[in-house]
Amino acid sequence: MLVLITYDVNTESTSGKTRLRKVAKQCENYGRRVQNSVFECIMDQSQSIMLKSILTDIIDESVDSLRFYYLGNNYKTKVEHIGVERGIAVDQPLIL
Amino acid sequence: MLVLITYDVNTESTSGKTRLRKVAKQCENYGRRVQNSVFECIMDQSQSIMLKSILTDIIDESVDSLRFYYLGNNYKTKVEHIGVERGIAVDQPLIL
Repeated sequence: MLVLITYDVNTESTSGKTRLRKVAKQCENYGRRVQNSVFECIMDQSQSIMLKSILTDIIDESVDSLRFYYLGNNYKTKVEHIGVERGIAVDQPLIL
Repeated sequence: MLVLITYDVNTESTSGKTRLRKVAKQCENYGRRVQNSVFECIMDQSQSIMLKSILTDIIDESVDSLRFYYLGNNYKTKVEHIGVERGIAVDQPLIL
């Protein structure tokens, strides 16, 4: 299933900047960054639960936020992009 | 239906900062800001097409991007939030 992860991390402090890097790094293990703080991850239920708990441990819930959108398996018709692209589509093969 | 709008606007230039403000202002007409550049809008098909065209006209497609995620009508079980909240839920009555 496609899980969209969006996040806001308060970077006013150095620890906030560290949290932001850590959140992005963890998300990169599971999917593709499509915008600054927006990741698209193709995961099964257990991976999604695990990533959620990892990210929850990283953030400071009093100033940061995470949002998870569960788009299911038939997501291709549910997503539209306009403008500059960041990376390859999460389910496209990387041809080297 | 719930339409999630995420955007990245390049704010290195003054015109970029203006574009960012304009995009947010337009989205505020249709829904709720849930994170810095993430809006949740409850709209019908025609409203969604109109907003998409307004936002497309505002951005510079060579440096900015918009993403639309169509979550349908049964969205409540598809969205999860962890951490600090921004505003009221988009379909909750505002009690003054």
